[in-house]
Amino acid sequence: MPSSSAVSYDAPHQLTREKTHDDYDYDKLKGWRKLRPLRPGWGMYHDVRRRLPYYKSDITDAFTYRTIASIIRMYFVNLLPALAYTLDMYRRTGEFFGVNEALFSSALAAMVFSILGAQPLTIVGITGLISLFNYTIYDIIIQYDSSIYPQFMCWTAIWAAIFHWLVALWNMCDYMRYVTDFSSESFGMYVGIIYMVKGVEELVSEFSARGSTSGYLTCMIAILYFATIYALEKLGSSTFLKPAYRGVLADYSYVIGTIFWVGFAHIPGTLKRANIGMVPITKAFHPTQPRNWLINFWDLDVKWIFVAVPFGFLTMLLFYYDHNVSSLTAQARQFPLKKPGGFHWDFFLLGCTTFVAGILGLPMPNGLVPQAPVHTDSLTIYETDVDVITTSEGEGAEVRRPIVRATAVVEQRVSHFFMGLALIGTMTGPLLVVLHTMPVGVFAGVFFVVGWGSIESNGIVEKALFLLREHRFIQRDEPMLTIKKRKICLYIGLQLFGVFSCVAISQTIAAIGFPVLICLLIPLRVVLLPKWFTQKELEVMDDLTANNKVVLASLGGAPILPGGAEVEDYGLERRYSEHRKGVSRQRAGSVHR
Amino acid sequence: MPSSSAVSYDAPHQLTREKTHDDYDYDKLKGWRKLRPLRPGWGMYHDVRRRLPYYKSDITDAFTYRTIASIIRMYFVNLLPALAYTLDMYRRTGEFFGVNEALFSSALAAMVFSILGAQPLTIVGITGLISLFNYTIYDIIIQYDSSIYPQFMCWTAIWAAIFHWLVALWNMCDYMRYVTDFSSESFGMYVGIIYMVKGVEELVSEFSARGSTSGYLTCMIAILYFATIYALEKLGSSTFLKPAYRGVLADYSYVIGTIFWVGFAHIPGTLKRANIGMVPITKAFHPTQPRNWLINFWDLDVKWIFVAVPFGFLTMLLFYYDHNVSSLTAQARQFPLKKPGGFHWDFFLLGCTTFVAGILGLPMPNGLVPQAPVHTDSLTIYETDVDVITTSEGEGAEVRRPIVRATAVVEQRVSHFFMGLALIGTMTGPLLVVLHTMPVGVFAGVFFVVGWGSIESNGIVEKALFLLREHRFIQRDEPMLTIKKRKICLYIGLQLFGVFSCVAISQTIAAIGFPVLICLLIPLRVVLLPKWFTQKELEVMDDLTANNKVVLASLGGAPILPGGAEVEDYGLERRYSEHRKGVSRQRAGSVHR
Repeated sequence: MPSSSAVSYDAPHQLTREKTHDDYDYDKLKGWRKLRPLRPGWGMYHDVRRRLPYYKSDITDAFTYRTIASIIRMYFVNLLPALAYTLDMYRRTGEFFGVNEALFSSALAAMVFSILGAQPLTIVGITGLISLFNYTIYDIIIQYDSSIYPQFMCWTAIWAAIFHWLVALWNMCDYMRYVTDFSSESFGMYVGIIYMVKGVEELVSEFSARGSTSGYLTCMIAILYFATIYALEKLGSSTFLKPAYRGVLADYSYVIGTIFWVGFAHIPGTLKRANIGMVPITKAFHPTQPRNWLINFWDLDVKWIFVAVPFGFLTMLLFYYDHNVSSLTAQARQFPLKKPGGFHWDFFLLGCTTFVAGILGLPMPNGLVPQAPVHTDSLTIYETDVDVITTSEGEGAEVRRPIVRATAVVEQRVSHFFMGLALIGTMTGPLLVVLHTMPVGVFAGVFFVVGWGSIESNGIVEKALFLLREHRFIQRDEPMLTIKKRKICLYIGLQLFGVFSCVAISQTIAAIGFPVLICLLIPLRVVLLPKWFTQKELEVMDDLTANNKVVLASLGGAPILPGGAEVEDYGLERRYSEHRKGVSRQRAGSVHR
Repeated sequence: MPSSSAVSYDAPHQLTREKTHDDYDYDKLKGWRKLRPLRPGWGMYHDVRRRLPYYKSDITDAFTYRTIASIIRMYFVNLLPALAYTLDMYRRTGEFFGVNEALFSSALAAMVFSILGAQPLTIVGITGLISLFNYTIYDIIIQYDSSIYPQFMCWTAIWAAIFHWLVALWNMCDYMRYVTDFSSESFGMYVGIIYMVKGVEELVSEFSARGSTSGYLTCMIAILYFATIYALEKLGSSTFLKPAYRGVLADYSYVIGTIFWVGFAHIPGTLKRANIGMVPITKAFHPTQPRNWLINFWDLDVKWIFVAVPFGFLTMLLFYYDHNVSSLTAQARQFPLKKPGGFHWDFFLLGCTTFVAGILGLPMPNGLVPQAPVHTDSLTIYETDVDVITTSEGEGAEVRRPIVRATAVVEQRVSHFFMGLALIGTMTGPLLVVLHTMPVGVFAGVFFVVGWGSIESNGIVEKALFLLREHRFIQRDEPMLTIKKRKICLYIGLQLFGVFSCVAISQTIAAIGFPVLICLLIPLRVVLLPKWFTQKELEVMDDLTANNKVVLASLGGAPILPGGAEVEDYGLERRYSEHRKGVSRQRAGSVHR
């Protein structure tokens, strides 16, 4: 359909955002006017006003092949980890949260954010952190009375929803513009490690639940599933095969890998006899526990309702960071986006989904850190150009370097909507049976793929590898060479300290407090880092996570940086890499670059 | 020890080979004098005369660190596949050949060739092909009378030895100079595939012998062992870490991987309970079967003695190709060798070891195709230089390409000798017990590493990958671009036809005939290929396997090529790659380049 795809590429160019761009900006105001809570709803109002004119094009732009590829890819990338986390939650919350709850929650979030969201690119679903949250609360509650867990979770969600609404009304999302890669890389690394740990835990539980034979086969499937997806995605970013063919392999790597390894696990004979664990399912459309969907939240002692207040606040704090960073990375500068963001409005909506999830006893959905940029990536039209660089070796010996350019993004809300429909479809009886054929090993493999993707492409790892590289093979215009090695070590050392503090706390009952730790990284970066590093060093190593102009409009404009630096001064390292190799494709899991 | 290492680098330069170089050459002779069998022993005489002056330096040159690294690396690379093949033979020859026989045979070969051999770089031991040979003969013999197997094998070896001596005396090794990469790449590919198949067979037999739990764990160990060695060797040829550190990691990758995974298999608990298969051992220094070392070969019906003649001839044909190609690749042009070869003399010695192995009931040793070049590689002093190429992108953006140069080879016979001593040591009681701790999974892993190494770096695969690469990213001075794609397809198609014919025949009882197939590739190349390809095409795609001047001296000088081409005209593709990246290090298994 050449005509419709032409529409989708050109339409965004005809739209202009300048009209509304300067409307929402606190930095120009003086005195009491600077106080954000005094203008409740100002940010939300502007978000909606800025975004509404694009609503029609959000549907009409969708008629391209990329939308279809995106729906299928996101269905797998969203569903598989959600199910995997649910398996974990199922075991660790006294079987309260099951597959049906997970699917319902994911579908609810997809419907709400695809239809009403200001940033339909941000995929919302069940994260590993909410799973961690839920079972940590369970661990705390069972010390008193495990029967009140549903009601207590419900009140936690209600309070969290109220805090969400307050934050959205009081325009507090503006502070997200101060988030830099220093903290978002640490967060990405933390999430990656948690994913890997969960993958191993899945495998261990298979040993204890079903014995060694099943355990070892599950390990093998997990390792080979990981290798399959990794190899297919690697092939997709190579220069082998025609671009169209390798694109298809990479787009459908999860589909290919999942179908193959699910089939493998069901080959009759030795494999079938190993009797490995499959996804546990229950009756379609019913809660896992014998209960109504609506939680009887009114049946809770008043003291517990108040105990739930700090838990609700911590949930909000987690979502404040997690959801907004998802939106930021889904709309990072490397994607040539034309349509504006809307953080306040989306955070308000997130309050609503939190509330609904709470009273229905679902795990609360929020923005998925590794998956959100994958969605935008799946909608981006990449072109691999060849960069011919003449060398001193003469004619014929030119370096022919592939350089990847993101030419356009199919910005629309249809892919998100249909992915949600597919999730609802999965809730029906027949498809639930299909789900039941999936071995646990495949889920562990998904954890490894997504987790490793988040680690491998992480800025911390990139800097560490830079330190390990032999000096003489590093190109001389590499910006990192202008910084002392000692300073790079200190920088990634601080990041790793943050990461490992979070990982350590996640293994204890204090896990509930880790959002505080993560949020503390933002003031640490703003207040302490400029004392230890020169402006120049930070400009090379760090970058604003909110660096896309259309995004900053919703956050009240670019942040005020120390030393009068501009947004453009930061991220020298990223821009150097983009200049040489073009933008990196977001294969499953990579938070950045 | 800088002084002794200085000796070893400089000594070869002081020696000259010109004096003896022109002595052995049939091409200058006319009429009946050209008939090689009429001058029995002429080649052997010249081999010894040419090589003897270097004998003292073969010992004095050895006092460097590289010799130690070489001994350890070769001990593992030789021992592990030999044991692995023996496990296979043990099961498939009615438990006639066991670990003690394999160790004895390897040690015997190492002693003979390190002390008396003209080419001490060629590692001689137990190959997969002799294992295939032995159990195919067993499959044939048991159809009549399995009790005569030892005597029949003995007579096969005696006849093979006689044919060896005749070939050596009649100077027939000269024809090896006509071997080109067309057939040696096919052979390398075939060997690689056989290795991989054996690895899988090891795993399958673990399932049938010990059940699923042990089977799956063994699979997992094999896969992870492969990944460990592969990653360590990859790191060794990267530009990470200091050259000395990464060199150590790559040199000892087998040691590190083997110790780690053997230890892993013995961790108490679930792993230990899986009760996986270990190397079966018997009493030290005794044959596996209750027999004397000397086979009572006189107790065989005369008709069987004559039936053994064609089997002996086929064995000789196999060794003629396999052993000599091992020597050729161990002395390929990429290694800056100074000391001359001696094919006739070594083939005579091989006849002697075949004879001894026969009457003692050992598997017959011969040159190891994948391991022989690894030995030379382990003795080569590599230097990674940086090649700075200015580009049109200006100052600072120079391409800094690593280029590997082989500066010298520590040519000596001490490493081979001590490797043999280590093998004898392994035959003693205490070390046999250590061997018994090795899980079968590690051996399957060794098969995968060595087999995959032989496949990955193979010219067939390289050409196939070239065909798959996107045209615009291929540098314009790439010689393969001058050839039509159709012709490249035809060339690798013919190679693959040879490979798969051999693989297919190996799975049947006709496996005994596969040396004929392999040797047929040489006349096919000489007679048919020039009709289907132009001279130019062959010059790019093919190369003489015997392309080292010091080697060709022993084979009666350079071959007479059609169209008056010189040796230097061939191998354009190889030289292009060497010009750009330097020589490739021979990590376990790669036959070429």
